[in-house]
Amino acid sequence: MFISFEGIDGSGKSTQLTMLREWFESRGSGVTVIREPGATLLSESIREILLSTKQSITPTAELLLFSAARTQLVEKVIEPALESGSIILCDRYVDSTTAYQGYGRGLDLTAVQAINSIATRGVMPGLTFFIDVRYEQAQQRMQFSEGGGEPDRMERAGREFFNRVRDGYLAISQQDVKRFVVIDGYRDRASIHFDIISEVERRLHTVSS
Amino acid sequence: MFISFEGIDGSGKSTQLTMLREWFESRGSGVTVIREPGATLLSESIREILLSTKQSITPTAELLLFSAARTQLVEKVIEPALESGSIILCDRYVDSTTAYQGYGRGLDLTAVQAINSIATRGVMPGLTFFIDVRYEQAQQRMQFSEGGGEPDRMERAGREFFNRVRDGYLAISQQDVKRFVVIDGYRDRASIHFDIISEVERRLHTVSS
Repeated sequence: MFISFEGIDGSGKSTQLTMLREWFESRGSGVTVIREPGATLLSESIREILLSTKQSITPTAELLLFSAARTQLVEKVIEPALESGSIILCDRYVDSTTAYQGYGRGLDLTAVQAINSIATRGVMPGLTFFIDVRYEQAQQRMQFSEGGGEPDRMERAGREFFNRVRDGYLAISQQDVKRFVVIDGYRDRASIHFDIISEVERRLHTVSS
Repeated sequence: MFISFEGIDGSGKSTQLTMLREWFESRGSGVTVIREPGATLLSESIREILLSTKQSITPTAELLLFSAARTQLVEKVIEPALESGSIILCDRYVDSTTAYQGYGRGLDLTAVQAINSIATRGVMPGLTFFIDVRYEQAQQRMQFSEGGGEPDRMERAGREFFNRVRDGYLAISQQDVKRFVVIDGYRDRASIHFDIISEVERRLHTVSS
């Protein structure tokens, strides 16, 4: 079972991923958690470059860097974990690239999809939770979160950018309704978690029956 | 005028590029010299990752990293230099990716070409010198060159790999005979330089007439 979490920064997706991880672990399941971009030595180097504020990076270079990190991750971590039968929870995956670089930065969507398909090697989640919040709600949540510190390059991109990203997520959710579950993220975390485990249980039941 | 130099490591292309640079400069022309991957802050970081021996990098990740460095280079350096009317001499460009990652590493050539076309933004050299030497000739030359030191990750890839790369260069040279000039690189540097400036003068003459 390969599940990804998507949403704009501050949507609460990482919190929900952790809660779902604990739920799986309490049931005795092996879980591999992946944060994108990251989780391999190469990907961490790339993550460092991407989040650095010192370098001005063109949108196409950004797209290719994220994709390089992802393909390394797929080959070195996700494919072996899937083969070992582990459950994979991924904090962002290929839909982030479509939403952020395609819709957000305005790169050609056909080019983005061509690169996505090369980078993923066809390995896609069976289930994707899009935790949907508005930009203002995400901002509000991030202000109250601990250890906020200086905003990174992505977080400084601003309201209009995140509105385009959110619209992008909504568009791609509608294009693949079987894989995507859109969750209203502006509620307390327990209610959201309840919706998520209900969906996961439903899918587990469908798989095993 | 945008001229690229291609060839396997040890072919002598960098020496020839320097000689052509000096030839242009002695005639009073402004020359921008670019070494790939490199020439921008981002590209130098990527170059560091790519040539590092500590990380095992998948062929697709390698392809995407080179392409990220290249697109940054095109947008930040090559396009502005072309607009300013400078002559650009590039030590490796997009054909290196086709030859090394496509033919050398055996990645799908259609995928390589799709990524190349996104990364270059359609900006291509008008003239490409492929300095052709056999692997054994290149090895012999590198042994006698100064400051050899430890071979980097690419140089350790070995005979069969470089034979595939060379075959790749020969194949793509034949596909674009107008842009490519294949130079027999196993001769003294002065003879090679003479062939190169003859071709450049012929092209300059064609452009200006």
